Amino acid sequence: MENGFWRMAKNGGVLTPSAFCFERAATPEVQVNQLLIRTRHISLDPYLARAMRTWQGEVPGWKEGIIHGRIVGEVLQSNSPDFSIGDIITGVGRWQTVQTVDAHTFRIVPDWMHPATTILGVFGASGLTAWTGLHLAQPINGETILVSAATGPVGSVVGQIARARGLHPVGIAGGPEKCRHATEAYSFVACIDYREPDLEARLGAALPDGADIVFENVGGTLLDAALCHVNHHARVMLCGLASHYNDDTPLSLHNFRQLLYRAVTLRGFITAEHANLYTEALAELRQRMDNGQLVHDETIIDGIENAPKAYLDMLSGTGLGKRIIRV
Amino acid sequence: MENGFWRMAKNGGVLTPSAFCFERAATPEVQVNQLLIRTRHISLDPYLARAMRTWQGEVPGWKEGIIHGRIVGEVLQSNSPDFSIGDIITGVGRWQTVQTVDAHTFRIVPDWMHPATTILGVFGASGLTAWTGLHLAQPINGETILVSAATGPVGSVVGQIARARGLHPVGIAGGPEKCRHATEAYSFVACIDYREPDLEARLGAALPDGADIVFENVGGTLLDAALCHVNHHARVMLCGLASHYNDDTPLSLHNFRQLLYRAVTLRGFITAEHANLYTEALAELRQRMDNGQLVHDETIIDGIENAPKAYLDMLSGTGLGKRIIRV
Repeated sequence: MENGFWRMAKNGGVLTPSAFCFERAATPEVQVNQLLIRTRHISLDPYLARAMRTWQGEVPGWKEGIIHGRIVGEVLQSNSPDFSIGDIITGVGRWQTVQTVDAHTFRIVPDWMHPATTILGVFGASGLTAWTGLHLAQPINGETILVSAATGPVGSVVGQIARARGLHPVGIAGGPEKCRHATEAYSFVACIDYREPDLEARLGAALPDGADIVFENVGGTLLDAALCHVNHHARVMLCGLASHYNDDTPLSLHNFRQLLYRAVTLRGFITAEHANLYTEALAELRQRMDNGQLVHDETIIDGIENAPKAYLDMLSGTGLGKRIIRV
Repeated sequence: MENGFWRMAKNGGVLTPSAFCFERAATPEVQVNQLLIRTRHISLDPYLARAMRTWQGEVPGWKEGIIHGRIVGEVLQSNSPDFSIGDIITGVGRWQTVQTVDAHTFRIVPDWMHPATTILGVFGASGLTAWTGLHLAQPINGETILVSAATGPVGSVVGQIARARGLHPVGIAGGPEKCRHATEAYSFVACIDYREPDLEARLGAALPDGADIVFENVGGTLLDAALCHVNHHARVMLCGLASHYNDDTPLSLHNFRQLLYRAVTLRGFITAEHANLYTEALAELRQRMDNGQLVHDETIIDGIENAPKAYLDMLSGTGLGKRIIRV
C-alpha cells in the first residue's frame, strides 16, 4: 500500500465503512524539531469515535477530519537533538505508514515496556485509565466492584488489579466466550453475559451484596442494570460510554433515580488529568505483571488498510483485549 | 371534619385525587412514652410521592399505605417526662387531626424559630437541604450555580445563600411570575422559564461562563439542558427529581455524555446523613434571615381535607415557596 493516511469522508453522521477514506500522500519534508517515522502500531480506542464523527479532537488535525490516534513508530530521520534513527517512540499521530511528527509530542518507549505495544495497552492509556479509575473510587478491601466491558483493555486490568487488592470484581461482557475468559484469565469472580435476557436479574444473582463500585465503560442498558444493584453510597466511575459514541440518541435510564435514593456519587474522569498518579500506577502494573497477577491480551490486526473495519468491529463488541493495527 | 387520617387507596400506580382516601379514626389511647397531639401544620414534600406510590417509606406505617410526613403539633396529653401540655413539637406523623405519637420521635420547636412553621421550611428539611447541598458542592467564590425549582423551598434558599456568599445563582422556574419572583425576592441573577421553547439556548445565554455547580431538584428536560452547559469539573448536586416521583418512565438524557467529556461529578445526597452540619447550617440561615439576606416564603393551604389536592398541585409545579397545610 502506498503512503497515505486515513481521514473521515464527511463531518457528522454515524460511523460506517464508507465514512472513512484513504488519502495518498508524498513522503513529507522533515522540518526543524520534527521526526520522520515509520508507523509500526496503531492503537484503536473507542473514544476516538467522537472525534471521527464531530471533527473535534485534542489534536489540531481533527479539524480537517484527519484521524489521529496513539501510535508506536520507528525514527527514520531526526531533526531533533532528543531522538536518533532507530528509536522506538510513541505519541499521537496519523493513521499513516510514514509520517513526520513534532518531536516534542513524542517520547521514547522505555526498554522495560516489552513488547513496545504494551505502551498502547497495559502500560499506556488503557492500563493507566484502569488504575486511575480504581484509585479515584477509593476502594475498601472486600468491596464488590462491577466492571462493564470486562474483557476490554481497561476492564480486564480493572478486574485483575481489583482482585489482587482483595476486592470482588464482577464483570459484564458480550457472549459466553468472553465471560469465560473474564473469570479464567482476568480474575473476575463472576461475569454476566449482557446478550442473554434478564440482565438485571442475573446481575442481581451475581451481586448478592450489591455493588459498592461500578466501573462503567459502556453505558446504555448495562449502566441501567448496574444502577439497579448499587449499594448505598456507591461510587460509579464513569470511564467510557462505548455504546454511545457512534449514536446520538439519548441515554435512557430507568434507574437513574437510584443515584438519588442511594446517595451515589457518579464521577466522570479523564485519565490525562491525573498524570501525577502515573509513576505509582506503572510501578504497580509492572509488579503485578512480574508476579503473574496481571496478564495483557492484545488482538493484533495486520495492515493499515484494515484499520477502519477493525475499528468498527471493536465498537460493535467483537474481539478481546487491546486492539492494535500492525502497519 | 371528624378525626381521621389520609391513606393511599392502593399500592402502585400514578398519583391522582382518587389515589388518596380519608379513613375515620376514634381518638386514640395514649400509651406510656406517647403523646396525644393536635396537628397544627403539615409539610408537603415532593419526595413523599415515592412512598405514596410504593408504600415503602422511612416510617413503618407506610407499609400499610398510611401517609406520614413532617408535622408541627401541640401536645394535648403527655405520658412522657420530656413533654408538657401545650408544648409545640415537631416530628414525622400522620396526616391526621388528632393523633398519638411516640415521644422519642418528636422534639420541641425552639423559641427562636418563629413562626413554628419555619421548622418545616427554612429551618427544617428544606433549608437544611439547601445548605447541605451547597456545602457538599464545595463552592468557590465567583462560581456560577444553576438551580432548578428556583422558587421552591429548597431552591429559593440555595439562591439566596449562594448570592450572599458571592456566587452567581441562575435559576430555572415555571412561568414568568415565578421567574420574576426568583430574581426580585430570591437574589437570583437570572431565572429562565422552562415552559418557553428553546430552553437549552436560553439557558446558554443566561450562563455566559457556563455552570460550575448544578443544584438539581427536578430532573428530566431541565437536567438535560443543564448538562449541556456544565463546565469542566462541574459538580451536579442531585437533590431531588421532582418531575419523576410520580412517573415510571426512564430518564432520557441526551447530554448525559457531558458527565464523561467534562469530567463532571454528580452526587446524590440525603440531608439526614449530614446531621453533623446542622448546627453550622442553622446558625448561617438564622443570621442571613436576621440581616435580611434570606426571606422565607410559605404558601399555606387551610384544611386537612385539602391536603391531597394541594399535594398534587405542588407536584405539578403550581405555587411558591414552602407548601404547608394548616389543620
